[in-house]
Amino acid sequence: MRSSETDLQTGSSALSLSEIQSAIDNKTKPLGALGEIETLAAQIANIQQTLTPQADTCRLTIFAADHGMALAGVSAFPQAVTRQMVFNFLTEGAAANVFARSVGAEIQVVDAGVCGDPIIDERLLQKRIGNGTANAIERPAMTPDQVRSALASGSALGHDGNEAVACFGEMGIGNTSSASLVAAKVLGLPVTEITGRGTGLDDDGLQRKSALLEIAATRTDAQLDAKAALQEYGGFEIAMMTGAMLGAAAAGKIVIVDGFIASAAALAASRIAPESRANMVFAHQSAEAGHARILDALEARPLLQLNMRLGEGTGALLAFPLVRAAADMLRDMASFESAGVSGPA
Amino acid sequence: MRSSETDLQTGSSALSLSEIQSAIDNKTKPLGALGEIETLAAQIANIQQTLTPQADTCRLTIFAADHGMALAGVSAFPQAVTRQMVFNFLTEGAAANVFARSVGAEIQVVDAGVCGDPIIDERLLQKRIGNGTANAIERPAMTPDQVRSALASGSALGHDGNEAVACFGEMGIGNTSSASLVAAKVLGLPVTEITGRGTGLDDDGLQRKSALLEIAATRTDAQLDAKAALQEYGGFEIAMMTGAMLGAAAAGKIVIVDGFIASAAALAASRIAPESRANMVFAHQSAEAGHARILDALEARPLLQLNMRLGEGTGALLAFPLVRAAADMLRDMASFESAGVSGPA
Repeated sequence: MRSSETDLQTGSSALSLSEIQSAIDNKTKPLGALGEIETLAAQIANIQQTLTPQADTCRLTIFAADHGMALAGVSAFPQAVTRQMVFNFLTEGAAANVFARSVGAEIQVVDAGVCGDPIIDERLLQKRIGNGTANAIERPAMTPDQVRSALASGSALGHDGNEAVACFGEMGIGNTSSASLVAAKVLGLPVTEITGRGTGLDDDGLQRKSALLEIAATRTDAQLDAKAALQEYGGFEIAMMTGAMLGAAAAGKIVIVDGFIASAAALAASRIAPESRANMVFAHQSAEAGHARILDALEARPLLQLNMRLGEGTGALLAFPLVRAAADMLRDMASFESAGVSGPA
Repeated sequence: MRSSETDLQTGSSALSLSEIQSAIDNKTKPLGALGEIETLAAQIANIQQTLTPQADTCRLTIFAADHGMALAGVSAFPQAVTRQMVFNFLTEGAAANVFARSVGAEIQVVDAGVCGDPIIDERLLQKRIGNGTANAIERPAMTPDQVRSALASGSALGHDGNEAVACFGEMGIGNTSSASLVAAKVLGLPVTEITGRGTGLDDDGLQRKSALLEIAATRTDAQLDAKAALQEYGGFEIAMMTGAMLGAAAAGKIVIVDGFIASAAALAASRIAPESRANMVFAHQSAEAGHARILDALEARPLLQLNMRLGEGTGALLAFPLVRAAADMLRDMASFESAGVSGPA
């Protein structure tokens, strides 16, 4: 880590944004010609406080849990799929596994509260908060203890590990409903404005889901603080991911935020600890209706627009090579001076 | 390569688009949930005629050449920068070098006609067509022999090598002007509709460039065939890249088309051999004005929107991990059946 400006009063040092911009502008390319990659490089330099950043190492943590709401029929898929997909992750057949290998990321899977007997497998991290959440349409999804526990477990997982780049994914049938309710309550918006088709509801399914979420929303005040929103409507995997984002940001990692559900967790994290926002890179614009509202609230511009809506951290993994390239650019590209290249005439 | 449908008359076999779509739809994910990655996977399967495609190997070829027009003042940078940047590529300091290392691609640099004495360096491929083109504002940039020679050299280079994915980049001060004229003449559009700021002209510079390109355009008919457009207005690097795209497509490679200048070459290639279009993947939407017009004519939807305008193949390199991930998805992801995962309820 390079120090450049020294604060005489505190003895701490900081790399200024203008120093970072100047280093980027001196690279052998027309001014601004790398567009969003330059913006990303500046963010990474600011996170790592160095003009020679590195973003070579990446780990995806997938949090899996079940939702009481799923039994009310908010999803196109049966609840059993959460558990089946955990096995698919463990046997490396899911999209997240394939993309992790493809981009050079490690992967770990966490049982945050999948319904049924605990899955005994040494490749699975056991952090079960409960046997699925309560049905949030009728009552709080979690107890206050459960939300505290999920945030604390997540924070420890986010801190853990030496990866420069932390991606977080989720699996949980019904969790677009949970994420819609959490985000709507944090933002004080009607939940129908942040409700979409999830894994692929048809028109009737969407109408049914919207009606159920409106019933769920009427149980509480129009706006809630982030922890209350997570307790009332969150999934264990969403609350744990919120904690993990906070832990990873506090540990100085670059946090790549995946799609709709991860953005709801990022929104909650940014309300709990606003400084965590500086470490967040937004991977992609999800096809899920309502994602744009959450991104707007976070003043976030996602890197990719690929019409994806899978979750699991798949969007974050596909954004990772851009993050790595941005760090590499700032660290390794020649300057006009070092390369003996003339500037504009 | 897997055969599936046999054409009894010719004895050839072909994988149908519906077989490809069915394989993608059976992967463990909601229908269509990987968006553009699924479209890309289908294109790759069609190019390689297999449901187990691979796009692991990638090579970027950068064509460098000079333009007579550059001396008339169409660029913000002096002509000497073309040559200086060739040395920057050879010493691995340019953005293209850094991105190639970052994404795991090889790189080769070709002198297609840089002004000055030939650069003697074993790392540089010598394919010089001339000592820069003639000034296309006043006369044809190339002789008929030169354009034939550039296309033939490019085609051989495109055929050469075993990489699954071929990226092509360019370096040549003044070559956004050349690309604008080539594209305008191929499409039969006024050149001002496809003229932008290139490496960063200010308003006065853009006005001057537009006026010069209009003078150049009046020398010839409103619409030209692709080879005539390349001869009248092309750069050696643009004509050689056109040939390389044709050669790589004929060899069954996936061709990633970079930004504005590469898209002008792709347009010319698709007019010379329309079947080459099937092998082309478009990397990014350039910030250069006019790129959208060329992409529309090619019915192309680029993968990335990062506001980049550097050239050198940098956009193509950043798109490569998406191409690799799409092939990996189709080849390696589990199906609902193989993973024992339930479909929609």
